[in-house]
Amino acid sequence: ERLGFPEVIYGASKSLPVLIEILQSYQSKGLNALATKVQPDKGVALKSQFEGSLYDDISGVFALREPNAPDSPSNEVALLSAGTSDAFVVNEAFYTLQFLGCHAARYNDIGIAGIHRLLSKVDELKKYKVLIVVAGFEGALPTAVGGLLPQPIIAVPASVGYGVSENGAVALNTMLSSCANGITVVNIDNGYGAAMAAYRILQRTA
Amino acid sequence: ERLGFPEVIYGASKSLPVLIEILQSYQSKGLNALATKVQPDKGVALKSQFEGSLYDDISGVFALREPNAPDSPSNEVALLSAGTSDAFVVNEAFYTLQFLGCHAARYNDIGIAGIHRLLSKVDELKKYKVLIVVAGFEGALPTAVGGLLPQPIIAVPASVGYGVSENGAVALNTMLSSCANGITVVNIDNGYGAAMAAYRILQRTA
Amino acid sequence: ERLGFPEVIYGASKSLPVLIEILQSYQSKGLNALATKVQPDKGVALKSQFEGSLYDDISGVFALREPNAPDSPSNEVALLSAGTSDAFVVNEAFYTLQFLGCHAARYNDIGIAGIHRLLSKVDELKKYKVLIVVAGFEGALPTAVGGLLPQPIIAVPASVGYGVSENGAVALNTMLSSCANGITVVNIDNGYGAAMAAYRILQRTA
Amino acid sequence: ERLGFPEVIYGASKSLPVLIEILQSYQSKGLNALATKVQPDKGVALKSQFEGSLYDDISGVFALREPNAPDSPSNEVALLSAGTSDAFVVNEAFYTLQFLGCHAARYNDIGIAGIHRLLSKVDELKKYKVLIVVAGFEGALPTAVGGLLPQPIIAVPASVGYGVSENGAVALNTMLSSCANGITVVNIDNGYGAAMAAYRILQRTA
Amino acid sequence: ERLGFPEVIYGASKSLPVLIEILQSYQSKGLNALATKVQPDKGVALKSQFEGSLYDDISGVFALREPNAPDSPSNEVALLSAGTSDAFVVNEAFYTLQFLGCHAARYNDIGIAGIHRLLSKVDELKKYKVLIVVAGFEGALPTAVGGLLPQPIIAVPASVGYGVSENGAVALNTMLSSCANGITVVNIDNGYGAAMAAYRILQRTA
Amino acid sequence: ERLGFPEVIYGASKSLPVLIEILQSYQSKGLNALATKVQPDKGVALKSQFEGSLYDDISGVFALREPNAPDSPSNEVALLSAGTSDAFVVNEAFYTLQFLGCHAARYNDIGIAGIHRLLSKVDELKKYKVLIVVAGFEGALPTAVGGLLPQPIIAVPASVGYGVSENGAVALNTMLSSCANGITVVNIDNGYGAAMAAYRILQRTA
Amino acid sequence: ERLGFPEVIYGASKSLPVLIEILQSYQSKGLNALATKVQPDKGVALKSQFEGSLYDDISGVFALREPNAPDSPSNEVALLSAGTSDAFVVNEAFYTLQFLGCHAARYNDIGIAGIHRLLSKVDELKKYKVLIVVAGFEGALPTAVGGLLPQPIIAVPASVGYGVSENGAVALNTMLSSCANGITVVNIDNGYGAAMAAYRILQRTA
Amino acid sequence: ERLGFPEVIYGASKSLPVLIEILQSYQSKGLNALATKVQPDKGVALKSQFEGSLYDDISGVFALREPNAPDSPSNEVALLSAGTSDAFVVNEAFYTLQFLGCHAARYNDIGIAGIHRLLSKVDELKKYKVLIVVAGFEGALPTAVGGLLPQPIIAVPASVGYGVSENGAVALNTMLSSCANGITVVNIDNGYGAAMAAYRILQRTA
Ligand SMILES: Nc1ncnc2c1ncn2[C@@H]1O[C@H](COP(=O)(O)O)[C@@H](O)[C@H]1O
Ligand SMILES: Nc1ncnc2c1ncn2[C@@H]1O[C@H](COP(=O)(O)O)[C@@H](O)[C@H]1O
Ligand SMILES: Nc1ncnc2c1ncn2[C@@H]1O[C@H](COP(=O)(O)O)[C@@H](O)[C@H]1O
Ligand SMILES: Nc1ncnc2c1ncn2[C@@H]1O[C@H](COP(=O)(O)O)[C@@H](O)[C@H]1O
Ligand SMILES: [Mg+2]
Ligand SMILES: [Mg+2]
Ligand SMILES: [Mg+2]
Ligand SMILES: [Mg+2]
Ligand SMILES: [Mg+2]
Ligand SMILES: [Mg+2]
Ligand SMILES: [Mg+2]
Ligand SMILES: [Mg+2]
Repeated sequence: ERLGFPEVIYGASKSLPVLIEILQSYQSKGLNALATKVQPDKGVALKSQFEGSLYDDISGVFALREPNAPDSPSNEVALLSAGTSDAFVVNEAFYTLQFLGCHAARYNDIGIAGIHRLLSKVDELKKYKVLIVVAGFEGALPTAVGGLLPQPIIAVPASVGYGVSENGAVALNTMLSSCANGITVVNIDNGYGAAMAAYRILQRTA
Repeated sequence: ERLGFPEVIYGASKSLPVLIEILQSYQSKGLNALATKVQPDKGVALKSQFEGSLYDDISGVFALREPNAPDSPSNEVALLSAGTSDAFVVNEAFYTLQFLGCHAARYNDIGIAGIHRLLSKVDELKKYKVLIVVAGFEGALPTAVGGLLPQPIIAVPASVGYGVSENGAVALNTMLSSCANGITVVNIDNGYGAAMAAYRILQRTA
Repeated sequence: ERLGFPEVIYGASKSLPVLIEILQSYQSKGLNALATKVQPDKGVALKSQFEGSLYDDISGVFALREPNAPDSPSNEVALLSAGTSDAFVVNEAFYTLQFLGCHAARYNDIGIAGIHRLLSKVDELKKYKVLIVVAGFEGALPTAVGGLLPQPIIAVPASVGYGVSENGAVALNTMLSSCANGITVVNIDNGYGAAMAAYRILQRTA
Repeated sequence: ERLGFPEVIYGASKSLPVLIEILQSYQSKGLNALATKVQPDKGVALKSQFEGSLYDDISGVFALREPNAPDSPSNEVALLSAGTSDAFVVNEAFYTLQFLGCHAARYNDIGIAGIHRLLSKVDELKKYKVLIVVAGFEGALPTAVGGLLPQPIIAVPASVGYGVSENGAVALNTMLSSCANGITVVNIDNGYGAAMAAYRILQRTA
Repeated sequence: ERLGFPEVIYGASKSLPVLIEILQSYQSKGLNALATKVQPDKGVALKSQFEGSLYDDISGVFALREPNAPDSPSNEVALLSAGTSDAFVVNEAFYTLQFLGCHAARYNDIGIAGIHRLLSKVDELKKYKVLIVVAGFEGALPTAVGGLLPQPIIAVPASVGYGVSENGAVALNTMLSSCANGITVVNIDNGYGAAMAAYRILQRTA
Repeated sequence: ERLGFPEVIYGASKSLPVLIEILQSYQSKGLNALATKVQPDKGVALKSQFEGSLYDDISGVFALREPNAPDSPSNEVALLSAGTSDAFVVNEAFYTLQFLGCHAARYNDIGIAGIHRLLSKVDELKKYKVLIVVAGFEGALPTAVGGLLPQPIIAVPASVGYGVSENGAVALNTMLSSCANGITVVNIDNGYGAAMAAYRILQRTA
Repeated sequence: ERLGFPEVIYGASKSLPVLIEILQSYQSKGLNALATKVQPDKGVALKSQFEGSLYDDISGVFALREPNAPDSPSNEVALLSAGTSDAFVVNEAFYTLQFLGCHAARYNDIGIAGIHRLLSKVDELKKYKVLIVVAGFEGALPTAVGGLLPQPIIAVPASVGYGVSENGAVALNTMLSSCANGITVVNIDNGYGAAMAAYRILQRTA
Repeated sequence: ERLGFPEVIYGASKSLPVLIEILQSYQSKGLNALATKVQPDKGVALKSQFEGSLYDDISGVFALREPNAPDSPSNEVALLSAGTSDAFVVNEAFYTLQFLGCHAARYNDIGIAGIHRLLSKVDELKKYKVLIVVAGFEGALPTAVGGLLPQPIIAVPASVGYGVSENGAVALNTMLSSCANGITVVNIDNGYGAAMAAYRILQRTA
């Protein structure tokens, strides 16, 4: 706020009445507000409570008012992931960016097992100012992206996998140890944090 | 290289003869070269082998030729840390930035236990384009910085501490879980990676 | 008991019949009794079984008789936390202190991301004899408090967070490694233990 | 300092020249100063550099001037441990307390395997205002003490043991999970922190 | 079997039809059979399927025929634990011993926080040939028992606790690092294994 | 002692002067004494200090007087291991048993990769009252032994291995999870504890 | 695909509509398709949606068309496990192999606690080209197999067990540290991966 | 042996005299013998003790007689790694393969950060029957190889890295979770095991 960042509400460990109370205080001031990781039962209740609100049941993002930044009109942030399993993280970043007034485009078909799909997109991806790359299992996608593209890269490990990679820790450690240059990392499933980090960079970008 | 990044040599697990061979191949092409995490015995030997070279025995950085970017002439990157214990990481980032032609200023007196020292520097720190924040023990410094300053922040955990914080993992996890908005993180002791991430951002910055 | 401490019942792994039996034996002796971490279904059943009893569904604390120590009349213990997510731990400490006949005041609006909220309360907080500080995620609040206030500080990590900080272990380790002087720590979510530790100190305090 | 606490220097990760520089700045202001976890080679050098200084080679504590608080003249703090293996932690707490002007008595013969040794000391131990209890291996001593004595207890896990208890983590976790009431804990080997926590309590004690 | 041990069925990861099939094959040979860790729904179904069978819903032990060894007629095995939370492990050992034709007595009131309860039972406990000691949380009970009694001791960690001791690992490690002499340990919650180990000893005992 | 067990000194974290002082106090009372895990430099010094003493440089066991129980004259304890790498643990158990007046025989050629070597010894091994089984790497030897022999089995994980099994933790966990019936376990490298556990059993054995 | 491998769908983290969409796109191209780790509710729905499809509710494998490779007609792959608890992993490998057109035979009665059952099958097992060995708990079966049979061995840890072996990590580490020669390992519960690894080998085998 | 595998000696935890004794027993039978992970001091001593022997000081492999299989004459096994840091593992596999009479070729210049180097070798690599892929840090190389080549792949994590990837565990977990199909894995630094696994496959290969 003091820093020009809107306040965002962590929804996972707040009860429905507490969430409603907080959201009403924003609403009464005429402000929009964003809550993340809101579980489905609470999200559905909030959606019917606040007219004109948005609830994305894949990511659990709730917003008092639908952000009106259109999907991908400019070339600010590209959101890359391997497939539909990572969508809950991708969407958290996507709606947070919209809420912040930034433009984001989603690339969900960029798997590393088939490296050619990524290679064929390299030129198109060069246009974006910041790249957010989400991956679960062994989390190798940011390494491949980092070897092919020069922009700032924010890697987000996703808690997708089983056995040794069950909770996202392997993807996290892979991203932290990446042999590709200058990749930065945020917490497991922290699409919100990746969006905020992109926002900090975009504020500085010509 | 393809991406405009100079190649940097990881020195820790290479023998002296191997390092000399690699460095000579750069030298023979008239190129400068940087090696990181070079242990003291190898560093001293390299220094006497290559005339005009630089070896920083605090960080283990070796460069064929002294980078000539002067200390802190502009306001590109601020390097913050609590004290002298973190200097080995700070210096790795500092010399890598110089090697990349970026300007960096070191702030080593910014301890969080005495929050007033940080508060008194906030205005001066606002001038930098990117902030790299190094911390060991519980690693709380980036959270405090993130609550006070709006720039891109790259947090680097340092392997300084004992007991539960012996190897830097507590600092790493603190930084990843930070309640301050949009902080990104690199591997423990990875001053080099933080510098490269800053470089990616600076390339995009007006 | 021998030490002047009332016995407190650990409710989480006891069945309802076992809890009722134990509580009735206290009741029949005319004693009050406290049970902690009682799950909602059992708590509601106990409340209707024992007239005049208290069940706090946020913390799971049950007491045979409502403790009659009023909220915050004197300046014994201040309970600090960042927000509503930590309330389940705060309340466990709060009701235990009341049960022990100690006076406690709750400060739930003391977040470290906005350091100014804490700074504005420092003078008021100086009046308390003991500070209990609850924090989840990266658990940095006790460090900030410890740098600003001279009293005994008991830090309680809360199992609030996700990704690397999911179960409270990061907050615990941060508190144990704190660079602030002389902070002591109890188990994750152990509001009860923090209250007992405060009670040991208050017994010695003028 | 602001809080009335003297500044203490963490010696483990500072080079000899850096330590000398810091200590001279204290000396030139006529102040005493304490450094902890100073390795033997550096400790011996400091001792010969600064006349009238103290270096305890068991704990690695260095002080510019010998603290003159006599051993155990009053009944402020009792330091309990099982035997000589824990002495490096006990002494760090002991000399820090002396430096802070507090009186401490050491009880090194209180093993839990032979519970009768502890039982025979209970009456004598009741006189102290604060108990610091150090233990390695399984770390059960604080639990036994906590069941027998009502004072504030600060437990310190020691990195003494092998196999599963090699680095002190088992002792730490035992102390945090103790079924004895109201035991507080500091980091592994953190005798310094235990002393500071005792000091915070003693400041409040009649 | 070849070794004179009856075969015991691990019930947790077998479906009801699979369990019924296995048990019927024992029944058709006129043999008794034991299954452990059978979940309530399956246990209740088995109980009504097999007439004269036993299902203990605390431990999940199922037996085709009620073992007829009376509770505690001789002095073979004493089962010690702190309280009712550990009963699910105690009972698994108890019914397995009965199935093996051994006599076992349960002592559930032996808490270490009140060491006097244990001290008052020492003479009575001296009569048993083997001691099985179950403990959760910090798991210190076997250490205390081992310092007071000379028999073979089999310690069983119970998955009772929260925070750092949530899954029984702290109790396990405490038992493995015990400073009491010659304590042996089995897996967390493995009452069955403790009973089998006691049985191996009893076969050798005069 | 009270329990009829001789006191054994843990040598690893005691300095040479401290060890000499303790040993002299035993010697002056005409008692034998055993110290375990005494490092080579201290062991050699003790050996020359105390005439007629024993120091085994493989295990680090020191005894004031050579125990005079001959190697394997009766059939009390068999010590099994796969090969020479485990000898440091085997010998700690062996000399402790001798010190306790028990008879022990070593079988170092019983590898599980070649199961036929173990099978060929089964009849001979049936004669012993207690089996101690030492294994590093994956620690599977006790499982095989437990499937073939009915006696009490004490498994000792050895810190022999590399990669995932570097510190003995894999062997420990394998032994704790063994599908063979009634195997008990002691701490990693704890040959001393295994000997004491065998001694407790032998005291009860006809 | 490019490599001649059919694409297999990871079903666990995909919603039913997403799965249906993907499967229909395969169906419309006249292709068979396999999905793994499909939870029961989704599996049952898919089975009724796609006529002629296969859903194995033990492993969660779904196939658009029943693979028509008969059970075990030739001697390509033997699937070994100790018993019914491991069947969910065994079946994932079995149906994947069928889908790949390979012949597999299941040996579910090969427990290591009774080593004779395995020994009696050695000659029969010699006929297979590749051995896949599944084990939970301590995971020792592959070691025994590796000491008796010369073929390529792919070991699969199963998440079957409790206490220290709850999630399959002990079995995994045991297999990685096996003292038997040349055993390879895949992720916990990864029957699919084991089948693919066998397929890579069979493609090269005469 | 029984299986046609030569016995290989684990050298790391054996003393020089023990190694000499074992090797002489092979020599006296006219057999060659291989020892792995022999530390430099012991390796040098063995080399001068046994005429005509081989000691590779990079991997620590010792062989009584130089294997005479020439480097890479046929197309049996390709050994891939990113660079010189992994050479200690590569060479262990290389010399073991030679000892087993297999032909191996080393590709040390195949880094994933520069994916084009790998792409340019794909056709050449198609000729080999088995691929062994060694990687440290985040260990992503096998995933890339697995997406491009159809042969059996044995991945070996190397203990090369720092921070979170210090001991090779990240590389191990990455390889186990790889999204590329059918990759198998051996223990960290286990070049020997990878060679034996390749040997098992080659025995079956036309
Ligand atoms: N300190 C460092 N931490 C992480 N990566 C590094 C470091 N120094 C160099 N690198 C990277 O390691 C690669 C060089 O590895 P190498 O070929 O083994 O010297 C380069 O691509 C650098 O990006
Ligand atoms: N042994 C110790 N353990 C933890 N903190 C310490 C220790 N010794 C000194 N400190 C703290 O570390 C700070 C000094 O750090 P430094 O400026 O690096 O010397 C002081 O504020 C002390 O509170
Ligand atoms: N190797 C060992 N492992 C575990 N405990 C030991 C060992 N050696 C001696 N002890 C125990 O440690 C206690 C002695 O500790 P201390 O008084 O420090 O010598 C004795 O009571 C022994 O039971
Ligand atoms: N059970 C499984 N374990 C690991 N990988 C799998 C599994 N099932 C499918 N896959 C792989 O996951 C990829 C499919 O991922 P997706 O596109 O998300 O369905 C395929 O390329 C398969 O190689
Ligand atoms: Mg993914
Ligand atoms: Mg720091
Ligand atoms: Mg919090
Ligand atoms: Mg101790
Ligand atoms: Mg208990
Ligand atoms: Mg072994
Ligand atoms: Mg199994
Ligand atoms: Mg590598």
